[in-house]
Amino acid sequence: MSLNVALLGFGTVGRAVARIIVERSLPFRLTHVYNRDVTRKVVDWLPPGTVWTERLDDVLAAPLDIVVETMGGLEPAGTAVRHALDAGTPVVTANKQLIAQQGTDLLARAAASGCELAFEASVGGGIPVICGVRDGLAGDRLLSVSGILNGTSNYILTRMASAGASFADALAEAQAQGFAEADPTDDVDGFDARAKLCILARVALAVDLRPDEVECRSIRPLRPIDIVYARRLGSAIRQVAHVERAGDDGVVAWVQAALVPLASPLAQVDGGQNLVLATGASGGRTSFAGFGAGGGPTAVAVVSDLLAIARGHRSRLAPARRPARVMGGAPVPHYLRFVVRDRPGIIADLARVLAQHDINIDAVLQEPGTAKEALPFVVTLEAADGTTVQDALSRISHLDFHVEPPLVLPFLT
Amino acid sequence: MSLNVALLGFGTVGRAVARIIVERSLPFRLTHVYNRDVTRKVVDWLPPGTVWTERLDDVLAAPLDIVVETMGGLEPAGTAVRHALDAGTPVVTANKQLIAQQGTDLLARAAASGCELAFEASVGGGIPVICGVRDGLAGDRLLSVSGILNGTSNYILTRMASAGASFADALAEAQAQGFAEADPTDDVDGFDARAKLCILARVALAVDLRPDEVECRSIRPLRPIDIVYARRLGSAIRQVAHVERAGDDGVVAWVQAALVPLASPLAQVDGGQNLVLATGASGGRTSFAGFGAGGGPTAVAVVSDLLAIARGHRSRLAPARRPARVMGGAPVPHYLRFVVRDRPGIIADLARVLAQHDINIDAVLQEPGTAKEALPFVVTLEAADGTTVQDALSRISHLDFHVEPPLVLPFLT
Repeated sequence: MSLNVALLGFGTVGRAVARIIVERSLPFRLTHVYNRDVTRKVVDWLPPGTVWTERLDDVLAAPLDIVVETMGGLEPAGTAVRHALDAGTPVVTANKQLIAQQGTDLLARAAASGCELAFEASVGGGIPVICGVRDGLAGDRLLSVSGILNGTSNYILTRMASAGASFADALAEAQAQGFAEADPTDDVDGFDARAKLCILARVALAVDLRPDEVECRSIRPLRPIDIVYARRLGSAIRQVAHVERAGDDGVVAWVQAALVPLASPLAQVDGGQNLVLATGASGGRTSFAGFGAGGGPTAVAVVSDLLAIARGHRSRLAPARRPARVMGGAPVPHYLRFVVRDRPGIIADLARVLAQHDINIDAVLQEPGTAKEALPFVVTLEAADGTTVQDALSRISHLDFHVEPPLVLPFLT
Repeated sequence: MSLNVALLGFGTVGRAVARIIVERSLPFRLTHVYNRDVTRKVVDWLPPGTVWTERLDDVLAAPLDIVVETMGGLEPAGTAVRHALDAGTPVVTANKQLIAQQGTDLLARAAASGCELAFEASVGGGIPVICGVRDGLAGDRLLSVSGILNGTSNYILTRMASAGASFADALAEAQAQGFAEADPTDDVDGFDARAKLCILARVALAVDLRPDEVECRSIRPLRPIDIVYARRLGSAIRQVAHVERAGDDGVVAWVQAALVPLASPLAQVDGGQNLVLATGASGGRTSFAGFGAGGGPTAVAVVSDLLAIARGHRSRLAPARRPARVMGGAPVPHYLRFVVRDRPGIIADLARVLAQHDINIDAVLQEPGTAKEALPFVVTLEAADGTTVQDALSRISHLDFHVEPPLVLPFLT
């Protein structure tokens, strides 16, 4: 028995979904394909009965068993998903922003209609991390989830490390290879990872975390010299997203570049790969890794959701609660990198401000052979909380020797 | 609503399952705990109504909603599981040998009775790999599964690498720490990993592979010098289990020590950790890693299965087919290590036999400063199939210069 499926969006992911369904003769009949300017999208390998349309209303008025949404963006995707769920039609979506921002409302609509809203493809591409934490680790009480959730940023950071490339060059390379969009803001400034983190917080920790509550820092200020210093410190630099329970009703959550030990699984994620680490009270740390983006892997997640719905799977997410507090994190050691016009007394000036904030210096590092007029050096700090370090740094940034703004990164253990 | 659960086996895993159920107030009532010599097992933190018994028949005659089997071994576990399934009672088991050897029969019984047989805990401890490949990657066509499936062997190999320990010392250390049993045969000779590999073959590839069909080689012959040479070759040594589709109806399957590139995820699995790599036609390579053994992690898998059954989850495994052929693998480069009484002409003798088998030598390596009367050295071979290499090696082993039998390991890419 075939199920009638409408495919909303026929970009890279939508096309890959259709391919898998056709090539593997899966029990789904693609009755409608919606896309803007749909005529340029039509392919000859879908059954002749498929309706190609740019009229969303027509699609949603048809008798459908499942709606697959791979358009991305909040609208018109949100309207379409709400319409389908309210009509009791199960929805499979790859839309991270929609689930991150409107997940509570959409899941309530799905529950009210008694139908499934599945979104495995919204986090970690082909890595079955929603299924893994929701079902596979259901027997544990999860305490935290960390991960490398944005393949573009990870590609840029690993190219900076392997080729000594500048951020700008690594970004241009990622764009040329199709790993980064013309406007890379969502990726490099952390908004993409933040949306995925909010989805993981809901699924793994039953916490209704909203993207604008999560502190998010860009990887743009990173320079090749930071990779060099990080390596001297036994670390790699990664864009990490992290959420953990804090007390009974708070969470710690952030997205930022961080120094991770070279032996950490986070350091071993290369190129466009993604990795999610879930830590549980009974089971310890479990990791899930693979291709975090791309048509094929993302389509695998969509089709896995379709097959689960076809066999009557009900995911029954625990209701997510709003956190009472969202915090920036426990005290950790920090890495400060300065680029200065060299003169005597700089370290003394820095040390004085840090001491005034009760922050202890661990070490001062300076690679040899750099120019006096733009001298990079690094100060590592003993464990201190992020807010205190930021306060100290904002005072330090008013000192007269800076050639560019100082950079601060936490060390993760 | 609580479900009545009987717990068969109150060892490390069974006790941890009971702990999680009690501490998290999960909706399961442990009505019976079965164990041999049960009186020494009784704990005070289970509800007073729990029946502690060493009479399996009494347990199975009771009205039960789910049976949890954590006894291990084929009998009496097999009889109990069959009895429960035939009576239509869902079973959750952590028993890898039972599922590997009798999975086809047991799953048929479960299907005939319309009840679930869940065995997440039988592979990879707390890592949700059954759920991950069966449900999370259902949308892909999986081509192969590899993994580090035995934590004891991996602990021994990583101790040999990190501490330069001999196999015997690393094993003794693992035994002292409770990672290895008094008789380590199942772990170090590969039988434990082989059982888990057969379960993964069923779940990931829908192949009914039987343990005695899978070639299995011990890690006992490994010496610290092999770790040294492996590192010189940019590799680590790991006990790897591997199964892949070969043609329409064959499979390649083996369990053995192998050289894996240091950058491979397999090389980065330390101590008692497990890792499973699944490669799919559309999604590429996805990995699952975490604690492969231990009470807490294994109990998480059992409890996750319990919760899935409680919410009515039906796993619907595709029927597994018997492979037409089980083979030893495609041609790969190999590592040969000899320990010889040195004399002129040894390399010439080896090279002649290898040439007679059409095997090309890639390199000869010899660490400096070793004794002439027991000189280890390594020959690396260009890609050749395992059978040809074994044939050549059996002729080589009759040459007169060996102090101990030669060792052969494949290189994995």
